[in-house]
Amino acid sequence: MRVMNNKPVLVVGSAALDTVESPAGKVDDALGGSSFYFSTAASLLSAVRLVAVVGTDFPMEKIEFLNSRNVDMEGLDIADGKTFRWGGKYHKDPNIRDTLFTELGVFETFNPDIPEHFRNTPLVFLGNIHPSLQENVLDQMIDPELVVLDTMNFWIEGTPDELDRVISRVNVLIVNDEEAMQLTGRTDIITAAEALLERGLSKVVIKKGQHGAALFGEGGKMFFLPAFPVKNVKDPTGAGDTFAGGFMGYLASHDLEDFSAWRMAMVYGSIIASFVVQDFSMNGTKTLILQDIEDRINKLKELVSF
Amino acid sequence: MRVMNNKPVLVVGSAALDTVESPAGKVDDALGGSSFYFSTAASLLSAVRLVAVVGTDFPMEKIEFLNSRNVDMEGLDIADGKTFRWGGKYHKDPNIRDTLFTELGVFETFNPDIPEHFRNTPLVFLGNIHPSLQENVLDQMIDPELVVLDTMNFWIEGTPDELDRVISRVNVLIVNDEEAMQLTGRTDIITAAEALLERGLSKVVIKKGQHGAALFGEGGKMFFLPAFPVKNVKDPTGAGDTFAGGFMGYLASHDLEDFSAWRMAMVYGSIIASFVVQDFSMNGTKTLILQDIEDRINKLKELVSF
Repeated sequence: MRVMNNKPVLVVGSAALDTVESPAGKVDDALGGSSFYFSTAASLLSAVRLVAVVGTDFPMEKIEFLNSRNVDMEGLDIADGKTFRWGGKYHKDPNIRDTLFTELGVFETFNPDIPEHFRNTPLVFLGNIHPSLQENVLDQMIDPELVVLDTMNFWIEGTPDELDRVISRVNVLIVNDEEAMQLTGRTDIITAAEALLERGLSKVVIKKGQHGAALFGEGGKMFFLPAFPVKNVKDPTGAGDTFAGGFMGYLASHDLEDFSAWRMAMVYGSIIASFVVQDFSMNGTKTLILQDIEDRINKLKELVSF
Repeated sequence: MRVMNNKPVLVVGSAALDTVESPAGKVDDALGGSSFYFSTAASLLSAVRLVAVVGTDFPMEKIEFLNSRNVDMEGLDIADGKTFRWGGKYHKDPNIRDTLFTELGVFETFNPDIPEHFRNTPLVFLGNIHPSLQENVLDQMIDPELVVLDTMNFWIEGTPDELDRVISRVNVLIVNDEEAMQLTGRTDIITAAEALLERGLSKVVIKKGQHGAALFGEGGKMFFLPAFPVKNVKDPTGAGDTFAGGFMGYLASHDLEDFSAWRMAMVYGSIIASFVVQDFSMNGTKTLILQDIEDRINKLKELVSF
């Protein structure tokens, strides 16, 4: 019922099969990609519309659970060729990883075509793809209420002009601390966030991995959130997209003018991400229920209160 | 009035004259050293007894303000020779610094002799000196209620056995995240803190610089605190000792059995440290009043609440 009353959220991103090794084990061709990580998280809280591309080799049974979770997959193209595959290995310190291989397959020519009935979706998440493709998506959307952008150092260095252009057209940017400083040339996240807000963003989210995340809004508004403490991280892949999914899934049913809704969106994103890293692929989020999330929210509240 | 009702806190540490350069400016032979940073902070909240050594060249007028703040300096020895001098240069990123010179002077042969009437001080802070000297101090104390230990990578690498021995004799260890992992061989602070608690400590404080600090106690108790956001850090020297001073100064007048007192001690330590880094030497803390601290505590509360 809760989900049906929400605004839907559109996600455009990658769809992948990941081969991941960590000290905790290994998975081969497991479900991966920003669009699936995002959708699995967001669909706990809102209806989701997914735009991505897979190859004809994609094992569709891996995403059956998304059908039952209010994820509209009309925008999932099945193109001739192979699905995007990524292989990585995490060290004992999960912050260090080696990329073992990247086979773009059909993702190399991904040019998102937004289905007609998706174009008026009020909340849009532009996953981490080429900024020009992110702009193409925006060109197809009709007056979205909220557009959230993800990006990475690869685009900051490689396509800064295209990235600046798309930043000027969105409401919220989600980056990690290093990216925020790289984008602005500042050496601390506070002044980096200020510089980003001056570009016309209404909010900036800065992710700090194990150190949590911070939200910056107009008028000097700030919110700092430590990460929920998780021992024995198994697989950090997709933590950022899972955060974004929980964040936007929460916003979908709350008043965007209310800063406390944004605080709680940060909390939901962060808590759902704390589950995803405790197992490989989406195993930590696909069986999650709201009660699990709320239990951790209460624990986190206790952890930060004074 | 408040101060008179507290238990006193004893600090044993360095006394120095620092020459510090940062993008914000430069100071020459400014007041430095862990004992002075600690005392300046702790004396805002409790009576302090200081044990340190300076040379005959030390300009005593630099510490006159400590006399009026309930810091008992009977334990400040003036030894024949030169005061410990340290020179450092901070980069644009204040987390990066070069040590330009270290002239130990009379600090090289520092062997703390605790004045008779200091020996029953209930709260003891062992600043970052050789672990064997820290043990010598403990041997002179009569049944302290709480002993807090600071140390650094230099002793973790150089004198691990001596350090282990002193750790086994104290209640609380304050280290930064890297030191906690180095001490335990763990790759995250949660399991590192657990390993340290297993050595018999009652609390472990892990400082994460700009990312804040975390407190770990027996029975899985935890408290996470983001750093108060400070723009334009001028001089990070002494932030850790200032934190420790605020932390112990607060504990001096509160129930050590109550975990919420420990949470607030973290908050006071962290907030007072946020003032010290905004100016060179102790300029940011020596004119501080309780109202300034409480204003920032209220802001921090707002920053973390959800």
